This record gives sequence, C-alpha cells and structure tokens, in this order.
Amino acid sequence: MDAPWLKWITDHETELVGKLAEAVAIPSISGDAKFRPEVHRMMKWVADELESLSASVEMRPLGEHTMNGAKLELPPIVLATVGTDPRKKTILLYAHADVQPASSKDSGWSGEDPFELRHDKATGRLYGRGSTDDKGPLVGWLNVLKAHAETKTELPVNLKFCIEGMEESGSEGLDELVEKEAKKYFAGTDAVCISDNYWLNTTKPALTYGLRGIAYFFLHINGPGSDLHSGLFGAMASEPMVDVVALMSKLVDSSGKILVPGLLDQVAKLTPEERKRYEDLDFSANDIYDAIGSKTTLSDDKVTLLMARMRNPSLSLHGIEGAFAEPGSKTVIPCKVTGKFSIRLVPDMQPEKVVSLVRDHLETEFAKLNSKNTMSVECGHAAKAWVADPTDANFTAAAKAIKTVWGVDPQLTREGGSIPVTLTFADNVAPTMLLPMGRSDDGAHSAPEKLDISNYIKGTQVLGLYLHEAAKLL
Amino acid sequence: MDAPWLKWITDHETELVGKLAEAVAIPSISGDAKFRPEVHRMMKWVADELESLSASVEMRPLGEHTMNGAKLELPPIVLATVGTDPRKKTILLYAHADVQPASSKDSGWSGEDPFELRHDKATGRLYGRGSTDDKGPLVGWLNVLKAHAETKTELPVNLKFCIEGMEESGSEGLDELVEKEAKKYFAGTDAVCISDNYWLNTTKPALTYGLRGIAYFFLHINGPGSDLHSGLFGAMASEPMVDVVALMSKLVDSSGKILVPGLLDQVAKLTPEERKRYEDLDFSANDIYDAIGSKTTLSDDKVTLLMARMRNPSLSLHGIEGAFAEPGSKTVIPCKVTGKFSIRLVPDMQPEKVVSLVRDHLETEFAKLNSKNTMSVECGHAAKAWVADPTDANFTAAAKAIKTVWGVDPQLTREGGSIPVTLTFADNVAPTMLLPMGRSDDGAHSAPEKLDISNYIKGTQVLGLYLHEAAKLL
Repeated sequence: MDAPWLKWITDHETELVGKLAEAVAIPSISGDAKFRPEVHRMMKWVADELESLSASVEMRPLGEHTMNGAKLELPPIVLATVGTDPRKKTILLYAHADVQPASSKDSGWSGEDPFELRHDKATGRLYGRGSTDDKGPLVGWLNVLKAHAETKTELPVNLKFCIEGMEESGSEGLDELVEKEAKKYFAGTDAVCISDNYWLNTTKPALTYGLRGIAYFFLHINGPGSDLHSGLFGAMASEPMVDVVALMSKLVDSSGKILVPGLLDQVAKLTPEERKRYEDLDFSANDIYDAIGSKTTLSDDKVTLLMARMRNPSLSLHGIEGAFAEPGSKTVIPCKVTGKFSIRLVPDMQPEKVVSLVRDHLETEFAKLNSKNTMSVECGHAAKAWVADPTDANFTAAAKAIKTVWGVDPQLTREGGSIPVTLTFADNVAPTMLLPMGRSDDGAHSAPEKLDISNYIKGTQVLGLYLHEAAKLL
Repeated sequence: MDAPWLKWITDHETELVGKLAEAVAIPSISGDAKFRPEVHRMMKWVADELESLSASVEMRPLGEHTMNGAKLELPPIVLATVGTDPRKKTILLYAHADVQPASSKDSGWSGEDPFELRHDKATGRLYGRGSTDDKGPLVGWLNVLKAHAETKTELPVNLKFCIEGMEESGSEGLDELVEKEAKKYFAGTDAVCISDNYWLNTTKPALTYGLRGIAYFFLHINGPGSDLHSGLFGAMASEPMVDVVALMSKLVDSSGKILVPGLLDQVAKLTPEERKRYEDLDFSANDIYDAIGSKTTLSDDKVTLLMARMRNPSLSLHGIEGAFAEPGSKTVIPCKVTGKFSIRLVPDMQPEKVVSLVRDHLETEFAKLNSKNTMSVECGHAAKAWVADPTDANFTAAAKAIKTVWGVDPQLTREGGSIPVTLTFADNVAPTMLLPMGRSDDGAHSAPEKLDISNYIKGTQVLGLYLHEAAKLL
C-alpha cells in the first residue's frame, strides 16, 4: 500500500470526487428518448477522458433503433486501448456510462437534483444517479490511469476498454459487437473484468463468479374483437382475463415453488461442499428484510435464502398487458391480454428446454380450461446462466488486491440477476470476473442512489492493484 | 300520425340534424380534465336551448371534485320546468350531455373529426361522438318542444328536465341531488322517462324494464416495501402477484361460473313464464357474435345468452393495478397490487350480502395460500338491480307510441349494465322507464359512434307521442 500511485489516490480524494461529479452531471438516461443527446454527450466525455489519459480511442457507431415509437441514433460504444506491449498480459475492462431515469420529483431524492453529486460528510456517502451504477466503477478505471500517469508508474498490463451507453436499456448492439470483435479488436485478451454489481452485504467486499440466466415469457390470450362492457357482455363473452389468471396461477405457488413439470429436474444437484460455501457467507435474513423493506420473505433461513438467489431458479409474475391497470374502477372486459413472467435460470438449465417445458405445460393447462379463446406462448429473450471458476488466476488476482486494500478476503458470491454480456465475454473473449465496487444498499435502480466514499476510493485502489496482481498471476 | 307536430318533425329533418350537429360539435368529454370547460359550455347550451323553448331553467352547481389529481368545478345539473298546470300529469325526463372521449386519431374514426356530425346518406347514419349516447335523445326532447311550439300544439303534460354532465364519469352528485329534490323540485312527478340505452338488436324497438346492479371490488395484496428486481429477489420475496392471480382464479372459471360459495343461492328462480319472455325475443347468437367481433361466447344458445345478460349475475375480471402493464419486458416484482373485478347483480341479490360472501370467500382462499403478504378486500361501489313492471301505465303509454310510429310492438328487455340513477328515480321519485332511441350496433363507447337517422327522426316522434299517451293513461 506504499506504492506512490496508491498514495496518490488517497491524497487526491477531492479531485477524484470532482471527476465523478463531472460524470454524474451528464443525465445519460438511455431509456428516455428525450435524454438521448445526453447519452451521446456522455460517451464523448468518456472518449475524451480516455484520450487525455493516452488511450487510443475509437467511437464505434451502432446505427439507429426505435424506442417507444421514436427513431433514435444509438450511442456509440467506446473502444480504447492503453498499451500494446507484447510482453504484457492484456485485460479487457467493461463498464457502462448510461443510467436509470431519475428526477428531483421522485420521492427518494427529496427534491435534490439527482445529477448533482452530493458528498454527505456525516455518512461518508456520495449521492447521485449513476454514482454506483456504473459511473463510480467507470471513473474508478480512469482514476487508475490518472494515478499511474501522475506518479509516472508504468502500467503492468495492456488494457482494452469496452464502454457502452445502452446497458440500462437492453445493451442493444453490444453482444453482436463483442462476438464480431472477439478475434479482432479484443484479440489477445487474457482476462475480462466487469465492475457493475454489488457486495452481498454492506460490510464485506465480494467477487462474483456466477449469474443466473433468464427466460422471459409472454402469455397471449385473445378473445373478442374489441374490449367489451362488462354490463352488456359479462357472462356472455369468454373473458381472456379469466384464462390468463387461471394459467398464471399454475406457474408458481405462494411458497415460491415452480409448478412447471420437469423444470426443476434440470437444476444441478447441491453438493455438501457447495452448501458449505453458502453457510460460510457473511449474510443473514435481516439483510434481506432491510433490502426489501419487509419481512415477507419465502424463508427466514440464511442458507435457503442465499441458495434461492444464487443457485436455484425462480419464477416471477410481472404483470398483465392489455387489462385495466389504472387507478379507479373501469367495467371493461379486456379482449386481448398478455401475462408477463420470467424464469431465472441456473446451471444446468438449458433455455431451449425451459421454453419447451413451459410451453407444453401452458398448453396442457389451457386445454383443461376448455376455453373458446386462443392462447400462444412467446419467449421474449433467453440466456443461460454463467458460472466461472472462482479459484482461477483472474479471481485470485482480484482477491489479493482486495485483501491488501480492505484487509479481508472477499466473499465469493453468485448473483440472482442476469448480465447477459458476461456470458458473451466468457464464451467469446476470455475468462471473466465480476469485481463489484459498491455495497448491497446502494439503491442502484431506486432513489436515492449512493456510493460510499470509502468504496469509491478503496475501490479505485482495488481496481488498480488487481492489474498489478494479474500481471504476475495470469 | 297526422298531428301537425308529428308532420313538422318529418318535414324538418335537415333542421333537426343541424341541431344535433350543434350539440355534437361541443366536445363535452367529462372524463378528461382538459375538456372540462367544454362540458360547462355544453350545459350552458342545454340551458339556453330549453330557455328559448319557454322552459324555466336553473343551473344547479355541484361544487368541486378532484379528478386525476386536478381540482375541477363539476358541471352543473340543468333543472327545467315546462308547464305547471295542476290538471296535467307531470313527467320527469332525464338525459346526459357529456360524452366519452374520442379523437380523430382513434382507429375507428378513420381520421374524421368525431365532433363534426357526418350524415352518411348512403347508409342513413349520423356519425359523431354523442350522436346516440346521449345527445340524440337529449336533442330529441328539445325537438319535441320545438315541434309543439312551431305548430302551436299544447303540450299534453307538464315536464321537468334533469340533465347532467357527468354521466360518463360516475354521475358525481346526481344521486344526492335526486334524493334531495325528490319532494321539492321533482315533487308531483307522475312518471320518469330515461332515454339512455339501446334496442336489443338492430331492427326492433324496445322498452327496458330491468337493469343489473353492480358490486365493484378491489382486492389489495401488499408485500415488500418497494418494487423489487426479480433477478435479485426472485424466490426470496413472497410475491403479491402470485397471490392475486391465485385468488382471482378462485372467483370465476373459464365457463363463466361464479365460484363464490352461496352467491348464486340469492338469484331469483326462473319461472316458465319468465323463460318464455326470453324465448319470444327477436334475437340470436349471431347478434352477439357481431357485437363482440368474435364467436368466443360462453354459449351459442339464444335463451342462455339472453338470460346471461338479463337475469343472471356475472363476474368479470378487469385487471390488476400496480403490476407491470406496459408493452415490452420488465423484470419487476410488484410490491403492491390490486386486482379489480365486479359482479353484476340481479334480483334478488342484496349488495351487502354479496360483499360479505365475496370477502369471506377471499379470506378463506387467502388463508389457504399461507402467504406472508397481507390481503384486504374493498368494495368500491355497489348498487342493487332494478326491475319495473313493464305492464304499468308508463310502459303502456310508450308501447302505444312505438306501435304508432314503428308499426310494431316493442321488445321488452332487461339490460346487463347498470344505470344507478334509474334506481334512485324509481325509489325516490316515481315509476321509471327506459325508452331507448338507438340500436344495438350504435357503438356508444367505441369508435365510430352513430345514430341511424330513422332512429333519430322516428325516435323523436316516439318521445313526443309517449307524452300524449301518458297524458291519457297515467
């Protein structure tokens, strides 16, 4: 911890917070068409920063897309290279520069501007949209470059950057680009590091070696030619809503048990060693009560809860499109409804097999209803789970960095969510690792979002040290 | 049919269509805050028309209300009196001057302005929002006054008018006004006539002697403190959506059978005489196929379908508030959802009993789920069914008028919908009758809305003749 570049980071806290504030100040909301120019401005900011830090930078255009009826230019992906020394290992860094929507009118922000980074000195927290997701980690990498440059320290590895601006809106174009460039721009990559997730709790650093996959379903039921008045047609017309709730009630029960026959047969069996890993994690049911704001969990047992997130599938019902969803009362018989649900996939579930089991089950249940309506099942998107070996050189390097900076070994975690590009990098480019900077209570997609300043500063040091350890271990 | 005032109506078709066009031209959409000034303008138009026809008119203010967060002045109710001759009977006429939303952008209007009445001479139809619901009948009454005035024919009865501007948005303030004025402004009323419904089919005039009541329910399920990410919390948190679909699936099955125990015990038994009335009606399953735009009916038998609308209860599922209802995919676990459903009530169902049976049933079913979420059942509004004696003097007078104008006896129908003020008039003021002007395919709440010109002109004659017959029979 006495390397000059590490000390430079500690000594320049104010400057580094200022740099993060610059990034947060650009409201790069990818999911809202009217903010699209800000996403473009953000990508330009990233490119300029990297260039000023001696990277060779390319902004790769992705063309146009349509969002909520508007034709929009996709933000370009920033590709950058720092160093091409053939004697050094090459590490590919991924982050995203776009953010979730936020407005000072949202209750959680209490009237503050979410795009003005606020350093709350009492709690040591940096409040602002994007502070933790994902501008903190992104600026962290810039800080690492800056610290090395300012202290004239040679970077121990070659770096490649892949920074996107559409992560919060489906990462449009990213998978294709990664696959296309795997043997071109990304050729020679020895390891991939993604910093875009969170610790398991608020106290212990983590490294993440697994993500669940997903299969997202649309259950369409069609009946009458148009919406009907329930006074005129109630008990005369067959109601799509009746069929859709009947079918959705056959997918999962109130205990969380998935009712699709055969689905659970695909799940990898639990070994005593794997079970011990969950037992050893620093975590309790209280962490979940805090996170969800209630005690309405499906279990109160730590290991059961951890396995529910990390190694078991889940089926969630998201809602129904086409039915009456506004406040108040409306006496409508919706003519066409779509039930939305998704299944989180774990090893060894195959998306194709999952889709076919779900479709068979729904067709069987629908036949039992003897309804005159028509049903179809559509799978929106599907991605299999990702699991890495948390003892490989990439993880070992990051674990050493964490131990040096934080004084503890990282918790080895698997996440319940899905970051599809992780699998794309792992399958096409090189062994991949998730190295989180923020804590479990950062509120990435809610309000207010924050990043603890210790996580930002020490987290920046971890990112840099990881490169030095990787140079030795990879 | 040779009375001068009847002939005047036939001779002045163009003028009468022009008067309806004037009314349609005011976009008096009560359910959209930004059109509220137009509803006020419409009520003023009605008051001015009545005044010009020698009525003594009062605009009764109803105060303010809140709609979608906006504080708005309710449109006043127009009360008017024409004649106070103690030797004459007094008839109270109800109609409404507000309309459903409509825009030339709605597919059904094919780019035409819904507020510009279009006379399609090929089909003999008058297209425009409000043409049949309920400006046609309202202007019909004005035409009757005008025809009598122009031909210097004495009105055979005294008239009272009660015209509201909030019918399409819950008739706010109307029930209270009717109850309050029953023995005051409406004192001495011998019969009430409401023209705000439709023939059973497209060919035969009808008189309506029954309406179903309604009990509208909100099934609230509360779980986590905020919406959750299904990747992070799927299979950890108890999902309100799972409970709500499970419970909604226990209310009604795909055959239309209501599953609430005890509910059907309250329904009046069918007598052979009553069954014969349905058998005799001019109606077929094809009328329903046409009306709903598909063959997805719960039965194809004419009598079963008619009884489903007229004398049996129905339970319809309207939708779920709080869940994801937009297009596309979102991986949310909604924290708080409200299932909306309603039951149409028939004789002899008591709303209080219905509410208690539904609540008991849902509580029993919810207990079986063993869920950690909380449930509550709220009844939004409830009104019992209305049935009149279709052989009373009021109905007989209207039947005679129909026979004279159309040359056929009216079909005696009951409606599946609910017009709560009907019951309020019947219970508080005088025997009440529904005298429809339009046909079953008028598209009152859809697009495009129309009124056949024959229904408008002959319908106006029916309204006037009814007054003459009532003067003799009441």
